[in-house]
Amino acid sequence: MIKINFSNSKIEKDIKEFDQNKIKKIDEMIVNKTGKGSDFLGWVDWPINFDKEEYQKMKEVAKKLRDEIEVLLVIGIGGSYLGARAADEMIRGLFPNDKVKLIYIGNTISSTYIHQVVEFLKDKEFGIANISKSGTTTEPGIAFRVFEKLLVDSKSKEIAKQRIVAVTDKAKGALKELATSEGYQTFTIPDDIGGRFSVFTPVGIFPLLVAGIDTDKLFEGSKQAYEDLKDINNSAYQYAVARYILNTKKGYKAETLVSYELQMQMFNEWWKQLFGESEGKDGVGLFPSSCVFSTDLHSLGQFIQEGTKNVLFETIIDIKKPSNDLKVPENKENLDGLNYLTKNSFHEINQTALKGVIDAHANSGDVPNIVIEFESMDAKMFGYAIYWFMKAVAMSGYLLDINPFNQPGVEIYKQNMFKLLKKPGY
Amino acid sequence: MIKINFSNSKIEKDIKEFDQNKIKKIDEMIVNKTGKGSDFLGWVDWPINFDKEEYQKMKEVAKKLRDEIEVLLVIGIGGSYLGARAADEMIRGLFPNDKVKLIYIGNTISSTYIHQVVEFLKDKEFGIANISKSGTTTEPGIAFRVFEKLLVDSKSKEIAKQRIVAVTDKAKGALKELATSEGYQTFTIPDDIGGRFSVFTPVGIFPLLVAGIDTDKLFEGSKQAYEDLKDINNSAYQYAVARYILNTKKGYKAETLVSYELQMQMFNEWWKQLFGESEGKDGVGLFPSSCVFSTDLHSLGQFIQEGTKNVLFETIIDIKKPSNDLKVPENKENLDGLNYLTKNSFHEINQTALKGVIDAHANSGDVPNIVIEFESMDAKMFGYAIYWFMKAVAMSGYLLDINPFNQPGVEIYKQNMFKLLKKPGY
Repeated sequence: MIKINFSNSKIEKDIKEFDQNKIKKIDEMIVNKTGKGSDFLGWVDWPINFDKEEYQKMKEVAKKLRDEIEVLLVIGIGGSYLGARAADEMIRGLFPNDKVKLIYIGNTISSTYIHQVVEFLKDKEFGIANISKSGTTTEPGIAFRVFEKLLVDSKSKEIAKQRIVAVTDKAKGALKELATSEGYQTFTIPDDIGGRFSVFTPVGIFPLLVAGIDTDKLFEGSKQAYEDLKDINNSAYQYAVARYILNTKKGYKAETLVSYELQMQMFNEWWKQLFGESEGKDGVGLFPSSCVFSTDLHSLGQFIQEGTKNVLFETIIDIKKPSNDLKVPENKENLDGLNYLTKNSFHEINQTALKGVIDAHANSGDVPNIVIEFESMDAKMFGYAIYWFMKAVAMSGYLLDINPFNQPGVEIYKQNMFKLLKKPGY
Repeated sequence: MIKINFSNSKIEKDIKEFDQNKIKKIDEMIVNKTGKGSDFLGWVDWPINFDKEEYQKMKEVAKKLRDEIEVLLVIGIGGSYLGARAADEMIRGLFPNDKVKLIYIGNTISSTYIHQVVEFLKDKEFGIANISKSGTTTEPGIAFRVFEKLLVDSKSKEIAKQRIVAVTDKAKGALKELATSEGYQTFTIPDDIGGRFSVFTPVGIFPLLVAGIDTDKLFEGSKQAYEDLKDINNSAYQYAVARYILNTKKGYKAETLVSYELQMQMFNEWWKQLFGESEGKDGVGLFPSSCVFSTDLHSLGQFIQEGTKNVLFETIIDIKKPSNDLKVPENKENLDGLNYLTKNSFHEINQTALKGVIDAHANSGDVPNIVIEFESMDAKMFGYAIYWFMKAVAMSGYLLDINPFNQPGVEIYKQNMFKLLKKPGY
């Protein structure tokens, strides 16, 4: 379901000549869980090992909730919301034709945003998916306090009990304890899967079920990727090798993930966390950024085309089949001179823009371009792509000889903040 | 209304010692319009020179339209929509409590997005602001064809005439011609103001009037910035100098504009165009990227804290007064241990996070941090900030000895695309 094209990468030869033994050894570290951070490799076999009974229960709870509400508040930060949001927007689009809307909170401390969401919910039926391993993280913690209270005050304790679901540790922690004491339904975040690898666990699956997304297809995609990527001569590893060469051999500092679909923006954000947090440690890693073309061609396009060279390369996601298509209407007067486009559909024009830009950036602009083809933007494709990128980042991190599965640097700002806020014990 | 703080920039001394004569000479080039690209310096005196009669007319047309519609489609790409969108989201927030919603089209060729907007509009009353100097740019051109037809077909030619406004060249071009022939109201894009400098012209002002934003205040802010920045010893020029030193003397390749408010994301996007398109040419310029914290601390935070060094520095927008604030509710059981925060408002906690992160990134992480204080997120502040950044980028571009007011590289992909699409004449 994914094809990769290196013909504009400027390093096709280097990729072919890359040491296959190294790939083989790292693949064994991933599959046999013998490398750095191996306690967090639960995601590797998850597409076949996931808890089928819990999945069934999630479906029942989500179906009931879906009937009752118009808005699901997804409370979570980082990996606790980016995967669900990436899936929701990629699959349903930015104007979903569906009763249930997902709103993401607990990922910001912005008082203005939170106040506006409170106001927005005043005449709405809403539920809450509170997603936190510990239940003590500041951002989701204080957001949950506000919206749990809002639900209890505006409805009742009884209704809140039916509409609040906690996705958290299976046994311990503040959120588990609170959910048990209040009688909230809980689903489990596995111990051996970190936040940015958790889309296929209840972290991502439960909100997506409430959004009415076909998660069976999503799992089908992840399982197919799991099977396809058993062969070490695979496109995900090749992508990892290409990034590694561009970064460590050619000196590129940043990678920009480019899409031609506005609804892929949050997929890009998910990817930024996956790669930035997995690789950015011990003084190494590519700086991950993203663009949506053609809109950003009229902002960052100039810099990419003619600005500082040898800083960034582009990885383009090329969606072959759009979820919908339409034609450019004919216009008799043709004052705008655009009648020549009426024989094409919008998607055909979009695909032509993509080709023209690759030529402009890679050839005229001397910027390496890697092209990753996705078949579509449906649930199966999402499942496939997510697993594909996870496998790629594991390879990529081990090539850099770092632990791709921890994030020690995220703690430092929290410690500073706790001291300033005079948190007990700090 | 803006204060700048370089105490965590690592280059405080270099900024102080920077050649003031150079600043003075460049300031004269800007004010007297004698530098490269001086045909496009109309924005400099615009806060006092703007057409008051046209402004009055815009107010009348917008008021009438505002009474009739629920959605204004803003058709434009790059500078033709980013300013209005940045203002709309910064000032009204992401869940505006207002009847009129702005939807941005013509900035993408995505068939799925355009199809979804068409479906979304089916039961809505909508109008169109078509913003294009020429009227022949592909993205807005084909979008206008779709939505003009939709309005005529679903309502009537007569109603379309009342609800379509063109912002375009004063005399020539396809859109001007079409508007004249169909009887659409037009407003003018001045000849000497480029897209990314056009927020204060009808390009930005007309949609913002329809959104109910107090544009008098916006102009008031821009005028105050115009006055404040006459003194060459100003914060905007200091910001330009700091970027220049970090880039050309210290070797940094990328700048990340950071905000702690989700509703500032499009402001960041506007800034990315302003700086990327103004500077990224002749092989120079900083790669502009952006973050919204604290959410992105749980994605890019790890890379910034511990990843590759000497690549990026951060510029933080610190909003002192939020548009709304609220308290963290008390909880008797305090299972999450967050009761210690109930004495603080959300905004106080957000401000503390900002302080903790600057310390973590600048001191532990060795990443230079520039802090720009905004008083608020209201219309006056927006007007002030926009003018401030425009003045900064003019200084910044001239320091790099390039023309900050053209964008020759944007044409290359278009030429390629036209050839592939067999546009007559290509």
